[in-house]
Amino acid sequence: MFKINENYLKLPGSYLFSTIGKKVREYSEAHPDKEIIRLGIGDVTQPLAPVIIEAMHKAVDEMGHQETFRGYAPDLGYEFLRDAIAEGDYRSRGCDISADEIFVSDGAKCDSGNIQEIFSEDCRIAVCDPVYPVYVDTNVMAGRTGEYDAKTGTWSNVIYMPCTADNDFSPELPKEVPDLIYLCFPNNPTGSAITKDRLQEWVDYANRNGAVIIYDAAYEAYISEESVPHSIFECSGARTCAIELKSFSKNAGFTGVRLGYTVIPRDLKCGDVSLHALWARRHGTKYNGAPYIVQRAGEAVYTEEGRKQLSAQVAYYMNNAKVIYEGLKGAGYTVSGGVNAPYIWLKTPGAMTSWEFFDYLLEKANVVGTPGSGFGPSGEGYFRLTAFGTYENTVRAIDRIKAL
Amino acid sequence: MFKINENYLKLPGSYLFSTIGKKVREYSEAHPDKEIIRLGIGDVTQPLAPVIIEAMHKAVDEMGHQETFRGYAPDLGYEFLRDAIAEGDYRSRGCDISADEIFVSDGAKCDSGNIQEIFSEDCRIAVCDPVYPVYVDTNVMAGRTGEYDAKTGTWSNVIYMPCTADNDFSPELPKEVPDLIYLCFPNNPTGSAITKDRLQEWVDYANRNGAVIIYDAAYEAYISEESVPHSIFECSGARTCAIELKSFSKNAGFTGVRLGYTVIPRDLKCGDVSLHALWARRHGTKYNGAPYIVQRAGEAVYTEEGRKQLSAQVAYYMNNAKVIYEGLKGAGYTVSGGVNAPYIWLKTPGAMTSWEFFDYLLEKANVVGTPGSGFGPSGEGYFRLTAFGTYENTVRAIDRIKAL
Repeated sequence: MFKINENYLKLPGSYLFSTIGKKVREYSEAHPDKEIIRLGIGDVTQPLAPVIIEAMHKAVDEMGHQETFRGYAPDLGYEFLRDAIAEGDYRSRGCDISADEIFVSDGAKCDSGNIQEIFSEDCRIAVCDPVYPVYVDTNVMAGRTGEYDAKTGTWSNVIYMPCTADNDFSPELPKEVPDLIYLCFPNNPTGSAITKDRLQEWVDYANRNGAVIIYDAAYEAYISEESVPHSIFECSGARTCAIELKSFSKNAGFTGVRLGYTVIPRDLKCGDVSLHALWARRHGTKYNGAPYIVQRAGEAVYTEEGRKQLSAQVAYYMNNAKVIYEGLKGAGYTVSGGVNAPYIWLKTPGAMTSWEFFDYLLEKANVVGTPGSGFGPSGEGYFRLTAFGTYENTVRAIDRIKAL
Repeated sequence: MFKINENYLKLPGSYLFSTIGKKVREYSEAHPDKEIIRLGIGDVTQPLAPVIIEAMHKAVDEMGHQETFRGYAPDLGYEFLRDAIAEGDYRSRGCDISADEIFVSDGAKCDSGNIQEIFSEDCRIAVCDPVYPVYVDTNVMAGRTGEYDAKTGTWSNVIYMPCTADNDFSPELPKEVPDLIYLCFPNNPTGSAITKDRLQEWVDYANRNGAVIIYDAAYEAYISEESVPHSIFECSGARTCAIELKSFSKNAGFTGVRLGYTVIPRDLKCGDVSLHALWARRHGTKYNGAPYIVQRAGEAVYTEEGRKQLSAQVAYYMNNAKVIYEGLKGAGYTVSGGVNAPYIWLKTPGAMTSWEFFDYLLEKANVVGTPGSGFGPSGEGYFRLTAFGTYENTVRAIDRIKAL
């Protein structure tokens, strides 16, 4: 008789955003007259930029003609895209990353979930708390996390690095040495950033201790301050200890288009074994490339016109972030984030738990946010709002919250 | 110090088609004057049908406007596509499969590689020999296959089901009972088919023994004979023992577009645990949906016009299959397949091994095929040619082989 992967049964409840989706759906069905504003899931609302649309139409046409039709993409992505990424995101910033160290994929969520596969089951992971749930849940599925303690909401074999107001939402170097360290900056969910000097300390720590940093830079486009690095490869020594994940979802609005990439430098090794080779083997065996049309859309992101149109889009969302930040602050809330990231992190009022505030906001203001405790125990008492709504909805949502 | 997943190191050589690609590239660079015809990898060559192109242009336009822009897709796929699949591929054939048992993905390769994750590491797998390498390689990565014996080319903990001329390329029910049985019909690589009566025996065997059949029906569109089932769910009892994988790559030419789906009936359980729920959890945690544009392209496959255009495309490739089959037969080769599948499976001449014949064909006829031994030890002495080339190239390739 076949048996299942019992690790799945350890997962408490369903994926955070599925749970929120269900709650909102139920409320909406029970109150069809209420107009709900969604500032919960980090999904964008602005249409794709004209330069992207144009590139996609062109690629669709190519697929319709014998001479220009494209079948399977190269395992690691088309060279035109990998070259554009290497130049646009790395060499132009002085980072020593070459095109053949870039693996194109269908998004950073998939990559951040799959990357753990190339590591031993014995590896111990460290995560920020609160944290994007995918890092932890995928390690639970792989059997790396030990047992769940429902009282504390923690796993016995995970090193948690609390990020709270006390440390300005920036984690301390862990005393117990982990094998894999997940870092996401600018941070989801807290919206906090890390300075280059501080990140250099992490790189040094990882190199000193034989740890790998899995660096999620999905929100890099939202950085507005000089001191904040756009890539971990701006730090010296990162080539021997870091993997970087990037997304096109937030800088170019590709949440429904699906494109991302992972950088694994050839210098990152375990003894003689290159992690680059292992990930290439995984990519070649379990993946079949991002669609040609989507890779052409990705290429357009790096054109001069693309950069112009997309920085306007980022500015639009960052204006929303300002509306939320200042609106809530003016209304007496304690808020952070929103300067180098499209997320605002607020303290729930009074003694409300995160989920109590979620229900309160949904019912009284018809505004959906994300409960901080859904991201980990240190998120309890916090709440995330995203700047990815439309400007009009963002203003209305904040007006409603102010009026409570 | 971090450690890697040691199972990766057990894999002998690189992924089959990467190896072939490299060999062909090297030959081509050394002989730039030679015009190589590729009948190796199962990649299509005909452009996307007009109905698909039209649907994609429309969807691209929608993504460019605020009112019709789409962000993250629903976890399991858009309803419009799942409804079209449920009706077009199942209910219309009398199969009891509902839309919410269908999980849309970016292709059958990914699904066939990922599906093993929801099963225990202790599960023992059975595969046809020869076999599509992804089934075995992904189980090697997960640590299920024991040790590799380089002499026999087999794994100690895998049950091999030889498919040779002796059994007409149809596997026997295994004496040792496996937990997971991978079946692919119409078959890749042998091009053989299975009758409904014979497949019913497999379903009964699986139900009797508590095994799960992972049924890869990627080549279903090429079935030409009445007795051959289009889905395992045509067999009674399949809802309690079978998972079906489908691809849009071969019926609609989506190798570079990326779309597939997996069917997990709600009746498929291990004790109280539904495999549907486990796969939904995996999909929600590690995947973020197929692109909206691609899902609209998939929907167009099921329209009346789509069916018409795509059956013409399938007929085009099946005419190539006939050219290869009859050409080689006329030249004295022993051939099979090509009737319900786009693959022709031929016996290598004389005492040539599969790789010897590969090199021979590449060098003497500048034709690329796939060595049978690359699919497993029982593939030794065989060779696969695909019907996915252009008609002109197919005719020329066969002429060249005949002239050897």
